[in-house]
Amino acid sequence: MIKVKYITVSRLFRFSAAHRLFREGLSAEENEKAFGKCSKVHGHDYTMVVTVRSEGEGDMVVNVSTLGEVVEKEVIAFVDHRNLNTDVPFLSGVLPTMENIARKIAEKLEEPLQRIGAELYELTLAESEKNSVTLHFV
Amino acid sequence: MIKVKYITVSRLFRFSAAHRLFREGLSAEENEKAFGKCSKVHGHDYTMVVTVRSEGEGDMVVNVSTLGEVVEKEVIAFVDHRNLNTDVPFLSGVLPTMENIARKIAEKLEEPLQRIGAELYELTLAESEKNSVTLHFV
Amino acid sequence: MIKVKYITVSRLFRFSAAHRLFREGLSAEENEKAFGKCSKVHGHDYTMVVTVRSEGEGDMVVNVSTLGEVVEKEVIAFVDHRNLNTDVPFLSGVLPTMENIARKIAEKLEEPLQRIGAELYELTLAESEKNSVTLHFV
Amino acid sequence: MIKVKYITVSRLFRFSAAHRLFREGLSAEENEKAFGKCSKVHGHDYTMVVTVRSEGEGDMVVNVSTLGEVVEKEVIAFVDHRNLNTDVPFLSGVLPTMENIARKIAEKLEEPLQRIGAELYELTLAESEKNSVTLHFV
Amino acid sequence: MIKVKYITVSRLFRFSAAHRLFREGLSAEENEKAFGKCSKVHGHDYTMVVTVRSEGEGDMVVNVSTLGEVVEKEVIAFVDHRNLNTDVPFLSGVLPTMENIARKIAEKLEEPLQRIGAELYELTLAESEKNSVTLHFV
Amino acid sequence: MIKVKYITVSRLFRFSAAHRLFREGLSAEENEKAFGKCSKVHGHDYTMVVTVRSEGEGDMVVNVSTLGEVVEKEVIAFVDHRNLNTDVPFLSGVLPTMENIARKIAEKLEEPLQRIGAELYELTLAESEKNSVTLHFV
Repeated sequence: MIKVKYITVSRLFRFSAAHRLFREGLSAEENEKAFGKCSKVHGHDYTMVVTVRSEGEGDMVVNVSTLGEVVEKEVIAFVDHRNLNTDVPFLSGVLPTMENIARKIAEKLEEPLQRIGAELYELTLAESEKNSVTLHFV
Repeated sequence: MIKVKYITVSRLFRFSAAHRLFREGLSAEENEKAFGKCSKVHGHDYTMVVTVRSEGEGDMVVNVSTLGEVVEKEVIAFVDHRNLNTDVPFLSGVLPTMENIARKIAEKLEEPLQRIGAELYELTLAESEKNSVTLHFV
Repeated sequence: MIKVKYITVSRLFRFSAAHRLFREGLSAEENEKAFGKCSKVHGHDYTMVVTVRSEGEGDMVVNVSTLGEVVEKEVIAFVDHRNLNTDVPFLSGVLPTMENIARKIAEKLEEPLQRIGAELYELTLAESEKNSVTLHFV
Repeated sequence: MIKVKYITVSRLFRFSAAHRLFREGLSAEENEKAFGKCSKVHGHDYTMVVTVRSEGEGDMVVNVSTLGEVVEKEVIAFVDHRNLNTDVPFLSGVLPTMENIARKIAEKLEEPLQRIGAELYELTLAESEKNSVTLHFV
Repeated sequence: MIKVKYITVSRLFRFSAAHRLFREGLSAEENEKAFGKCSKVHGHDYTMVVTVRSEGEGDMVVNVSTLGEVVEKEVIAFVDHRNLNTDVPFLSGVLPTMENIARKIAEKLEEPLQRIGAELYELTLAESEKNSVTLHFV
Repeated sequence: MIKVKYITVSRLFRFSAAHRLFREGLSAEENEKAFGKCSKVHGHDYTMVVTVRSEGEGDMVVNVSTLGEVVEKEVIAFVDHRNLNTDVPFLSGVLPTMENIARKIAEKLEEPLQRIGAELYELTLAESEKNSVTLHFV
């Protein structure tokens, strides 16, 4: 019989946030040179897919409703309808590129996910239908 | 033979912008009471569909590439990667609800569209996959 | 200046439900003849778009969050994760075609929407990306 | 009780076809000037939404499966995986713009739809997620 | 020249089915406690992506039309427009979570796919745009 | 603290092209037998996702705008609004299956991507929402 190596479970989240790519030590011109139009304050309807895995044999790898509650409470409640440059404690001092936002979200999720027995497998953050980053943990 | 009453042509545009629903004369608390989480600076990947019509019989009601160029030049260039509360001249002093943004965009498009022989039929502005407004002109 | 005839505001909802097209007075064979594979119990992730209108001039035609709360409370809470043939009081005795479900939802929404000053303009119910019905009220 | 003015039923179809916008009497240069990059042979995954209406009170305005069969037989079978400039009898001699393709499809559907009691209300043809035309019949 | 490690081919399928998460030995209350609103009969438009791989060098890793026919015949014909708790022989006695449905589908596909030279690489089953599971075989 | 193994960045591109699966040495009948309806000239709105990776720690794995410019210049400019059987130099003599198109695009991208410090991780080419291939490089 066909052997499943492992199963992953994914849940999609959305949040709306403002940001700009702007280094405090640089002028507006230098920031525009480095980051183009992203150096101006703008915003996105971000899409995030959190994927966890298990090698277990149970009926559910992880309860997706529980997964949803954890991520809503730990992440979405902090970033939805916020300015990522100024309003989010766990992003304080971080240049809010997709890569950095995703890394900080992953750090924030690690322990709460462990408490529900879920191991982070991948975390994808998309700022539009065109652009996304994926962190691979395994 | 089946009678076409009229034909409309639609083109979809996207832009990323920040905004908040905040009246200058009110306190942060009053704004939060009026607009909920939208009173904080956040952002969206807006989707806009511009629909024009004609009763003509030609091969093309309007050249969609030309339609695209007009809207890119007159609207998208001003709102993409901007803060709608502070950075867009034609939205100056306007509370940037979907309704108001759409009205101001329609005003800005009226004359340039007439120059290419296109009559505005509908303009839909969506701030997410859930919420949208449509202006009906005809 | 361009004249807006009226503005409509739309909000999208999703719910997951089971149903079958089955008339109680007919045999399984007769139902299969009438309704094909839809005569068997199956299910859908329904998408519903509620569109309301106003001829007003205000910043918001209707607050979409309030619109969302009304529809969640009056409709989604009753149909989500239910069997539409047996579990929904306001669909009791109704053959759950898209047309009939949409009509009954519209009846249920009429008064609560009036209370928030919203007039039903259209209601679209889709049982898949392929098939949908739209009720036109105006 | 809320009054439904009329109900429309929509079904979505997809087909993949090649085409170019090229007038036989013109040179390649003249065609490129008139139609830009569309003057070269290219292709699309077209999406078509056929919307029919009825003022009836029945459980179904029209059986969407029957609607699907009619459109598949009368249209999709002729255009899917074809070159619209050369391979489709009912498009012979027609410049295959979205507008013209839609008009010819509507003519071809008129009678077969009448036979199943369906009146064409709208026909939308999209050559991409950006560009579409809609024929309005009522 | 860049080295391709391997190629995978994916095909998407949809089916509409009813189900509930309900263990026969438990009461309705206990099931609701364990599975929340999913303990009631409801339904989904499931999306399934079957991904197969090959290390071959041919023009086609596998003919996607043939892949489509195999999966339609072996799986979709059994689950589309069915109640997964009661109507599908190969799911008999199985709690129809996404994980379990995906495992049983994979078992059913293994041999027929081998007969067309396709090795299962991943199988993703989504019960909505939010929630999905992926079986990884390699 | 949670360990990121590596980060990948993806960007989506679209292009519209015509093609047919047709071997010059075979008759039309033989080609139809081998490739079915795909042996006739047709077209697609192709979607391509280019995924690159890095093990770096920087704010950006790769600038997605720069990634976009490279792929537009090296690939999209050659294939968009073209006939893939006859009009694209780097596909000359190649049977334009998804697999072969993807391989040739990858070869064309390898060096320009290296110049911007990006390593190809995956390249997905989809000819419709149903069918896609993915090249895995790592």
